[in-house]
Amino acid sequence: MARHGLHGSIRARPGQREALAALMLEAARVAGSAPGCELYVVSTVEGDDDAVWITEIWRSVEDHDASLAMPEVRQLIARGRELIDAMGERQVLTVLGGHGLDGEA
Amino acid sequence: MARHGLHGSIRARPGQREALAALMLEAARVAGSAPGCELYVVSTVEGDDDAVWITEIWRSVEDHDASLAMPEVRQLIARGRELIDAMGERQVLTVLGGHGLDGEA
Repeated sequence: MARHGLHGSIRARPGQREALAALMLEAARVAGSAPGCELYVVSTVEGDDDAVWITEIWRSVEDHDASLAMPEVRQLIARGRELIDAMGERQVLTVLGGHGLDGEA
Repeated sequence: MARHGLHGSIRARPGQREALAALMLEAARVAGSAPGCELYVVSTVEGDDDAVWITEIWRSVEDHDASLAMPEVRQLIARGRELIDAMGERQVLTVLGGHGLDGEA
């Protein structure tokens, strides 16, 4: 069955990208412990000093939705507010399969 | 150390997306056996009937470059030519870390 993927950016306030990336790496640890989280990685892109990119793969939409209700996730979202200027792009993927996912070669 | 990420799309000729996705899932198995390949997943996006999206995470740029020289990969690229209309978007990521990567929680 297809998995649920998300690829999107968060724009940090000027000078806050490192702090935002550190917070999102903490979010990766928390979300990564949630049921159905197969990937949660934090990236930057050369030439864009304000954006932090998050790539997530979940077993299902429901697993992702449930993670957003976790108290630890809500605390991280609250802490992120002072670092975030705006949400950037957001792409929803239907992940057909591949290497590096749970239960696949 | 940061990993090397790629997120991009390939546009199939009309009616060829399923065949292209199947070919790229085969590519995922081949590339996934290459040293340093941590993720190689194949996705589609709702509302775009021609695009296949590929998300890759490699230990290094060098590992990715080496994979492109693999005979099996070159054969797949050759087989893809009749299915592909054009290369789409391409984003290069500096992957800082996260859940679901080799050696991380």
